[in-house]
Order: sequence, then C-alpha cells, then structure tokens
Amino acid sequence: MSTEVSHQPRTGATHPGPSHTAPDDVAAAVAAARAAYPVVSTATPRDRRRWLDAVADTLDAHADELVAIADGETALGEERLRGELQRGVVNMRYYAAVGESGDWLRVRKQTLPGPPPIDLRRANLPIGPVAVFGASNFPFQFGVVGHDTCSAISAGCPVVTKAHPAHPRLSVRLAELTRSTLAAAGAPDGTYSLVVGFGAGTALVDAPEIAAVAFTGSQAGGMALVDRARRRERPIPVYAEMGTVNPVLVTPAAIDRIDEIAAELVASFTLGAGQFCTKPGLLMAPAGSGVTEATATHVASSPGVWLLTEGIAAAYRDGIDDLVTAGGTLLASGQTMPSGYAAQPHAVTVGLADLRPGSRLLGECFGPVALVAQYADIDEALGTLATLQPSLTGAVYGAGPDDPDLPRAVERMAAQVGRVVVDGPPTGVACADAMHHGGPWPSTSDPRSTSVGAHALDRFTRPVAYQNVPEMALPPALRDADPWGLDA
Amino acid sequence: MSTEVSHQPRTGATHPGPSHTAPDDVAAAVAAARAAYPVVSTATPRDRRRWLDAVADTLDAHADELVAIADGETALGEERLRGELQRGVVNMRYYAAVGESGDWLRVRKQTLPGPPPIDLRRANLPIGPVAVFGASNFPFQFGVVGHDTCSAISAGCPVVTKAHPAHPRLSVRLAELTRSTLAAAGAPDGTYSLVVGFGAGTALVDAPEIAAVAFTGSQAGGMALVDRARRRERPIPVYAEMGTVNPVLVTPAAIDRIDEIAAELVASFTLGAGQFCTKPGLLMAPAGSGVTEATATHVASSPGVWLLTEGIAAAYRDGIDDLVTAGGTLLASGQTMPSGYAAQPHAVTVGLADLRPGSRLLGECFGPVALVAQYADIDEALGTLATLQPSLTGAVYGAGPDDPDLPRAVERMAAQVGRVVVDGPPTGVACADAMHHGGPWPSTSDPRSTSVGAHALDRFTRPVAYQNVPEMALPPALRDADPWGLDA
Repeated sequence: MSTEVSHQPRTGATHPGPSHTAPDDVAAAVAAARAAYPVVSTATPRDRRRWLDAVADTLDAHADELVAIADGETALGEERLRGELQRGVVNMRYYAAVGESGDWLRVRKQTLPGPPPIDLRRANLPIGPVAVFGASNFPFQFGVVGHDTCSAISAGCPVVTKAHPAHPRLSVRLAELTRSTLAAAGAPDGTYSLVVGFGAGTALVDAPEIAAVAFTGSQAGGMALVDRARRRERPIPVYAEMGTVNPVLVTPAAIDRIDEIAAELVASFTLGAGQFCTKPGLLMAPAGSGVTEATATHVASSPGVWLLTEGIAAAYRDGIDDLVTAGGTLLASGQTMPSGYAAQPHAVTVGLADLRPGSRLLGECFGPVALVAQYADIDEALGTLATLQPSLTGAVYGAGPDDPDLPRAVERMAAQVGRVVVDGPPTGVACADAMHHGGPWPSTSDPRSTSVGAHALDRFTRPVAYQNVPEMALPPALRDADPWGLDA
Repeated sequence: MSTEVSHQPRTGATHPGPSHTAPDDVAAAVAAARAAYPVVSTATPRDRRRWLDAVADTLDAHADELVAIADGETALGEERLRGELQRGVVNMRYYAAVGESGDWLRVRKQTLPGPPPIDLRRANLPIGPVAVFGASNFPFQFGVVGHDTCSAISAGCPVVTKAHPAHPRLSVRLAELTRSTLAAAGAPDGTYSLVVGFGAGTALVDAPEIAAVAFTGSQAGGMALVDRARRRERPIPVYAEMGTVNPVLVTPAAIDRIDEIAAELVASFTLGAGQFCTKPGLLMAPAGSGVTEATATHVASSPGVWLLTEGIAAAYRDGIDDLVTAGGTLLASGQTMPSGYAAQPHAVTVGLADLRPGSRLLGECFGPVALVAQYADIDEALGTLATLQPSLTGAVYGAGPDDPDLPRAVERMAAQVGRVVVDGPPTGVACADAMHHGGPWPSTSDPRSTSVGAHALDRFTRPVAYQNVPEMALPPALRDADPWGLDA
C-alpha cells in the first residue's frame, strides 16, 4: 500500500503521511455517503445547522493543534494560519445559518388558473453526495472542511472529500475531528468522509453515487475533472474554481497615490507567498506615473517565502523564466530563504502589446510575482483588458467618484471578472450573501457558480417542480403546514 | 450556394427553402449581436419589455399566415398550431414582464462590518450574445422565437438563432417579423437574427462572440453541442434540454381508474404525433389491473399521424423494431396515414426485468409509442424506477391523499425527474414562476437549468460582485438611486 508523503516546506524534510485509500475503501465511503443522503437531505435545516455548529466548536477548540500541523506542512506561518482557522470557523457558522434560513430552497408556490386550476410548487432540493477537492493554498478555508464542504452539507448533501497532497496530515486530522463531531451531533454515518491519494480522487469522480464535484485549484486540474465527469455514464456537474491572472488598472487621475497603491499591491501579490487565487497578477498604470520605480522599491524589500510544495516551487522558477522568454523583463526581486521550497518575490515589466491572447504572460504564475505594464492612453489599457482571459476578480484604483475614467474602467473590468474592487487589492474574500467568488471560464467551469457566500449552496441543489401533489406527498419545504418554519 | 429544403409531411413533397447562410454572413450576424450587446444589456428592463411585447403583437397579428406556413411544414394541424402560437404569444408577454420585474437580477446589497466597512453588492448581469437552437416539435413555443429567445432577450442578451430544418420557411418568416418589429420598437440592430444551415449552426457555437448556447432537441444533438463548446478556446455554457423517456407509475390503489388513466396516457403519448419532450414513454401499473387491455383498446382506436420529417419517420420505424429486438412485445397499433411521413401509434409491453441500465428500452423513441410494464409488487416498480435514466418529468397516478404508496412513489419519482405530476399526464408545461422544465442528465446538460418559466432567464446571466464601487460606476440595477425602480 503506498502512502502520501508529508512535506515540511521550510526544510524540504519529508515524513510518512497517511496511506492511500484502497479502492474498496473509496467504494465504501461513497456507498456510505449514498446511504446517508436520504437522511441528510431530509434532516431539518435546524439539525444540519446544529451539526455544522458542532464541527465549528470542535475545530475552534483544537486550534493550537491544527495550526501546528498546518504550519508544519505549509509554512504559511502560525499567525496567518490561526487567523485563517478562525475565519474558517466563522464561515462554518455562516453556512450553518444560511442553510437554516432556507432562502437557498427558493420555494415558489402558485395556483395556475384553470380550468381546472393547477397547484404548482418548486424548490431547490439537495442534489446527492458531493465529492470535494480542496485547495492547497487555504488549508482551512478552502480545504477539506472549507467552503465547499460546509455549503454542501448545509444544503443537505453528504460529502466525500479528498486529502490534499500539500497537507495530508492536516487533512486527515481535520477529517477525524469532523467525523467524530458529526457522529456525536447525530449526523448519520457517511455524512462526511475523507479519501487519500490521486487514484482515490479519480475514483470519486467516477463513482455512480456521486452527484456533483467541487474543486479549487489549477486550470489543468479543474479541466481534467470536468472532462472526466463528462465521460461518466451519467455526466455530472463539476464546479471548478481555477487560478487566473487578476488584473488591476490604475486610472490617470490616481497617479498621485502611486507609491501607496504599489505598496498595497506588492503586499497583496506576496500575501500567503503569492498563492492566492485572487492574487493581483497584472498591474496596468499610466506611463510616467512612477509605477515601475515604486513597485521595484517595494518588491526589493519583500521577504523571501516558502512555497507549499517542491512542485509549486519548481513551477514558480520555471514560470518566471517563461515570463521573461515570453517578452517580460525582470524589474525587481525580493529576498529569498536559505532552505526548503524557497521563493523570491519578483516583478516583471511587460509591454501592453505583448499581452496578446495565447501569450504565456496571460496565464497564472502561482507564487509571489506580478506583471507591470504601462499605458500611454487609458483607451489602450481598456482595449488590452478586453482581450485578456477572464479572471476571478480585478481591481480599479481611481481618484474617487469624480474620476471621469472610473465608470468605464469598472464596466470593462466587470465584463472580464466575477468581482470588481475599487481602491483596494483583490485579495480578501468575505463570506457574505452579496459575495461572488467565481467568474467566466477559465476562472470557473460554470460562470453562474460561486464557491463563497450564500449562493455557494446553489451548486449542490437542483430544482424540482411538484404539480398537483397532495400535501402529505410533498417534501417538507413545500408543504402548506410549513414544518420547517420557512414562512416565518 | 446550397439551400434548405422545405418538406410537406402530409405528402412528402418538397419545396426549395431558404439559402444556407454563408460563413461571412454568420460572422456578420454574430458581430452585430456583439455590437448590440452593450445596448441591449443596459437598456432598461422596461424598454426590453416593450420590445418583446411588440413582437408578441406582431406575431399575434400574423397568426393566420404563420399557422398556415407552420401547418404546411409540420402537419401538426391548424388547431394545435393556432393554440400553440397563442400560448407562445402569451409566453412572450410573460418573459417581457418577468424581465421588467427585475427579480432575476437577484440584487443583494450589504455593508460588511469593518474596520473599514465594505460596501458589497451583487447582481446577475446579462452574459452576452446567445446562440439559440430551437426544437422541431414546437415551432412556436420552442422555435426560433420561443422560450429560449424570449428569456435571453428579456435578460438583456442579443440572440442569434438557427432555423430548424423541419420548418425553415416558418423560421425565416418568424425571424423577418421579429427583426422588423424589434427595429421599429427601437431595439438595436443585432438584437435578433437568424442563420440557416448546419454549418451556420456549428459556426455559431464556435464564434468567440457567443457567450452561451441554448438547445432543445435530441440527446445526440445536445451533447454534440456541449462537446463542441467545450473545445472552444474559451469554453461557454450550453444549456441543452434533451429527449427522455418520462415514466408514469400507477399505484395499486388507483387500479379502479385504470381505463380512464390508460385513455389519458394514450392521448398524452400520441399528442403532437408523440413528438413531445414530455411524452410519457413508460407506464408501470399493477399486474392484473387490466392496464394492457385498456391501453391496447385506446391505442387501436388512435388515428394515424404524420411525423415532422422523413428522418424522424424512419427513425421511429427503426425505433419500434429496436424496442421489440430489445425484449419488447408489440401490444397494439393504431391507424396510419396513406401518404407522406406517416406513422402508426404503438404500445409495447415489456417486463420490468428488461428495463436494465443500458437497454435500448430506456432510450427515447421519438414518436407515438409508449412501453407498458406490469409489476407484481410496488417495491419492485420503485426499485426499477431508481435504475432508469433520469427524465424531464414523470407522473404518479394514485388514489388521493389517503393512498399509502403515494408519498414514496412521489419521492422516488422526484429523485429521477425535474417535475412530478400527480393524477395527470406529464405533457403540458405551463410558463410560470414555479415551473421547472429541466432535470438531471440526460434530460438536460445542466441540472440546475430550466428552459421554461421565470428561472429560464438565469441561464443567460452571470453574477458580478462590486466591492466599494462608487454610485456612478455601478450598473443601474445596483445603484442606491434605483433608476429601474426595482425596490418599488
């Protein structure tokens, strides 16, 4: 039996990790999820809230232990990881409450005029067992008990999740705590489980019992799952949230603040060692604004970082070479680390004309690097923006409500991304009702989907209409008796 | 230049139809749609309502002419076609009103606590130009100016639609009337256009300007478009609504009504020459209920029909042979027609045990045929139901609220379909807020989507979040000033 290896990015040291899940055990996990589905999907939203709140309590109580394991495997630092775990716990309670509210059921009841009149009711019902492939870069918020898992359970779907190879020991410990807590809270066996290993992951996507897949990670990984799910006997939806270059535009009227803006963006693209899916990867600013000098200064003083895995570190080094080969010029480099999966922050200048569709410059380079492009005329920059690949998010720095370029800059940015930020970096995604963390391909495989916020539950539901169905044969959410108190 | 051929199903006579659209003209149509998009997407919902209402008025005023062309090309009969056109006009006004209501924008505005506080707003915005592939079987309601076209324009998306080869002359006439009416109502050029020919259709799916595809038709056709759109440089969503077998279950307590039920279902599966996507294709009833005798009687007295095309007529004959080869037994046949694309209604009995996954018995046979299966025990029937391919819709005939089998029969049916009907045939889809006309694959390519009702607009939108964006740079729907009156 092969095992996962747990890596220490600070040193490159390795330790034996958990064993790969055997095919029979993957099948058993999927069968347990299928068996749990009738119970999880018909449990009251209040019960499911109780389950998730209990998991939140448990993870909170084990914060010291979890942060220590996570820091060993990710080198993201205790402070960042403690903060992330706290936000993850808050998110969990958020999804629990959103689930109980029942808004996501989108209940509609109406009587169509006859003769004879027709009673028609519609609700979004839980789709079935969901496979979750968490991200490397946010071991708590987007990991095996992150947004995807919590929103799926909240919507009434059991989850089988795959341990991420960048933090297998953490994945296993999170899963142990989650499983035991769910069991103690009364959730059925099979509500949540974890599998380990690449083969176990692909087996999940192939399993007939799985009704939907959620993924966070690279474009190559996401699209491989999309294609795999499409080849099943019964194709199922894959909601992949994938890495993109997230553009930032500084308007001509904002150049007075260029040093402050550059400082904020350098901090943003080196945050978490540049391993955010919302990292600003391309900064467009007016020529003569001093953007290159300011960026160079802040990058030069940026500390070295450790990337999550040896593979990510190697891909980052290759990526920097590729950016230069594709026409970029190295503008500045920060410090490095003496050991392990070390990486140096970089800024790379490019000409607007080099940002042509198909250029390597327009693909994500995962790690602490951003491109800087100067424009002579804002129309030129807006024209370039329209030819970029779509992104999860983008930012516009302007000069306030009177900036004449701000409306069209926001409009062009909105045409390319799922979230537009004004006067702030695109990193930082609040878990809120009005959030959208998605976007046109390649930022996601489904432009209507979000992996963060109240609408994240929508992915794990499908609508069903009931026509002239008597009260006692309706699902609880649609009954006149309203046993779940949704009308209250 | 090759041309489409217009067929007369009653005689098999052919007439020259419209020319196939040349590649340059397809490109021009798509470019015009792209150019119209900024105007159509930012027009007030009230203006778009006015445009669609004007088209409804025009089609209504041309009913005699349109019905005559449609009857010549489809042989569906004047009465049916006149009724369908009237419903199509009503639907058009419905989508116009739904669009104006703004519910589909799903506006959310919130202030997240700081420091500093974050202003976060989210709305569903029009996705871009949409390619529409209408259905053969409902030339008005699901044709080139049907549910897909109206819901797309209502949501702010220009449409390029493809003429259906089963009614090319009707498609062209509908498009002429629609284009001239939209222009007169003030909609920009490019809001709506039509292309003709298979090559023009595939060029639409490939066109970089097209942002989404809507399709109604066969599983083979729908999945070909899904795959094609996936191979684009930028993959786009394809919303395909595809043909399925729609199961019907009669509970043991309902057998007193078996003759009435059989009569209703035979009428339903022969309606429109059996060419409904909601046609009940499989009837499961208790053994000894007399279901085969009753069905045989009603099928034997059913009139012959004409199918829409020579190809459909040939596929129907082959399909009946296939059903028998796969284990079915011909139970009864109705009358036929002396000429043209004639078809005879049939009922075919099958054993429950023959309804195994992968069997040809479980694929759609487009035309006036249904399978009849008898069960010894309702658990056996419910077990079989769970192994069928999912369907758009299904029906349960029971004995009212006290029928002990009704709740679980409805629950099992709901697990397989997008709409469950009790005590009525599955044909007949009302255009209403609570409607769902979709379902798990293979009934659609996206189980969250509906092609009928208020939620049909959702397919042509994508959410965008705006973070700290000043009032004047927000889209109208999200402004505090509420210029569209959405809060009223």
